[in-house]
Amino acid sequence: MGLETRALFAELQDRICEALEGLEGKAKFREDRWDHHPGDGDSDAGGGGVTRVLTGGRVFEKAGVNLADVRGTLSERLAQRMKVEPQSFAATGISLVIHPLSPMVPTVHMNLRHIRMLGSEGAAWFGGGADLTPYYLFEEDARHFHHTWRSVCDRHDPEYYPRFKKWCDDYFRIEHRDESRGIGGIFFDYLKGDPQKVFAFVEDVGRNFVEAYAPIVERRVGEKWWDREREWQLLRRGRYVEFNLVYDLGTLFGLETHGRTESILMSLPPLVRWSYDHQPEKGSREEALLEALRKPREWV
Amino acid sequence: MGLETRALFAELQDRICEALEGLEGKAKFREDRWDHHPGDGDSDAGGGGVTRVLTGGRVFEKAGVNLADVRGTLSERLAQRMKVEPQSFAATGISLVIHPLSPMVPTVHMNLRHIRMLGSEGAAWFGGGADLTPYYLFEEDARHFHHTWRSVCDRHDPEYYPRFKKWCDDYFRIEHRDESRGIGGIFFDYLKGDPQKVFAFVEDVGRNFVEAYAPIVERRVGEKWWDREREWQLLRRGRYVEFNLVYDLGTLFGLETHGRTESILMSLPPLVRWSYDHQPEKGSREEALLEALRKPREWV
Repeated sequence: MGLETRALFAELQDRICEALEGLEGKAKFREDRWDHHPGDGDSDAGGGGVTRVLTGGRVFEKAGVNLADVRGTLSERLAQRMKVEPQSFAATGISLVIHPLSPMVPTVHMNLRHIRMLGSEGAAWFGGGADLTPYYLFEEDARHFHHTWRSVCDRHDPEYYPRFKKWCDDYFRIEHRDESRGIGGIFFDYLKGDPQKVFAFVEDVGRNFVEAYAPIVERRVGEKWWDREREWQLLRRGRYVEFNLVYDLGTLFGLETHGRTESILMSLPPLVRWSYDHQPEKGSREEALLEALRKPREWV
Repeated sequence: MGLETRALFAELQDRICEALEGLEGKAKFREDRWDHHPGDGDSDAGGGGVTRVLTGGRVFEKAGVNLADVRGTLSERLAQRMKVEPQSFAATGISLVIHPLSPMVPTVHMNLRHIRMLGSEGAAWFGGGADLTPYYLFEEDARHFHHTWRSVCDRHDPEYYPRFKKWCDDYFRIEHRDESRGIGGIFFDYLKGDPQKVFAFVEDVGRNFVEAYAPIVERRVGEKWWDREREWQLLRRGRYVEFNLVYDLGTLFGLETHGRTESILMSLPPLVRWSYDHQPEKGSREEALLEALRKPREWV
């Protein structure tokens, strides 16, 4: 299963980067191969990864697609957050975050991972998900994104979509803002059971990422925007940073296991603004987005 | 002691804001008074504060000076980080972060606080400090800043400066970058002992903030800078955000006690950039700064 998973994630990285370059039309991905060095007393550390980043594009201001296959030791803090005992682990994952240039095109994130605990219990599971973070709300886009994931989920288990949709809404909550990071999608973790069945689901998620996102990019990339919309995008990107650095377990996992910092934090937006106590105008499109983020909706 | 402390911090807020407006010469502080509402199951929550923020200045792009006098309950997570039992607390503090427009003028932070635990042990202590975050290293400025704090410390206890200087270097370490946030200053916590003596020291720190920082602003505000220096400033501001959201106990304290988010996060810089794997040129001034951040130095 380990080999099969790694091969799948590597293939997904290739296909997704190809599709993104196709949408982009100008900038190309650069690739960095890296080793996960033993260090800071973690003599178990090993493995490595392949980070691909595209910047300064016509469509994408920054897009990162990261492949990692690492071993290491869980710190106490991390084990506590993951609800397991501190022990050695092996993790294989693909993670991507795409920050478009246009405020009309939403940011998207997908992660798929296989985690193996190497302690006495030897638990192993899949986790992952995909979620959309618009700056302006186009309900048609939210419906398309969720519809894609519901179709994928329903092919495997009718309970998946409602459960994983709610999990996503709960996970991406920015408590201190009383807002969600975006309009959700699916999120799942600790997925065990029949390995072939679970693998087939994870594969199906990965193979449908482009279908979930590309039509939205194509639909919105031509929309007009001005300074006002750009400023709103920069402010909302601040919320993205707040979520990733304060709450995100994947980021914490990376930093606490002494992962490659540039590969972990490639998720952060290229340019971000924090303005003190910014309030959107009543009845504005900015306020309409905030309403959708304050109270998660059903989109399909 | 509680009343005296509150009065001191309120006076410091007035004096420091006045001095900053004097340096600034254009933009003025706006003031928001706020209550710390009971909420999220914390029926002990009470008190409030006064937040003053200046933005879009000629000298200061964003400056925030916050006064808080609140009561509440420590969450388990927070109590663990503070090394006490979960219990009710009272906290009085002044906190400021100044982000200048020019990359030649350093960012500065000061915080002074009095914390009282309201549980059975009833511990109370002072904490605080001041630290400087330059974008370009002017050794003369680093020496002036540290010299000011050493003089203040030495008037109270010859052991303070060496101890609090090292504490500052340790506290403001960004582990995942293997860098310090800036060139340090002083940091102290859990300062108990003779209350009058400790209060006198805290007062002396507060009353010397302007002397520690203003001469540096005056010296550097006329230095020329171009796009290259601005871009470097925006990148380094990213490190400031990383420290504050990942490691800073004051930020965590604020967010976990359901403080006023805009007052807590007024510390974040106005405009920030993250560039994938940016490396400064060999022999450049940017690299010289990094060297000073990688290995803390003695400045006096």
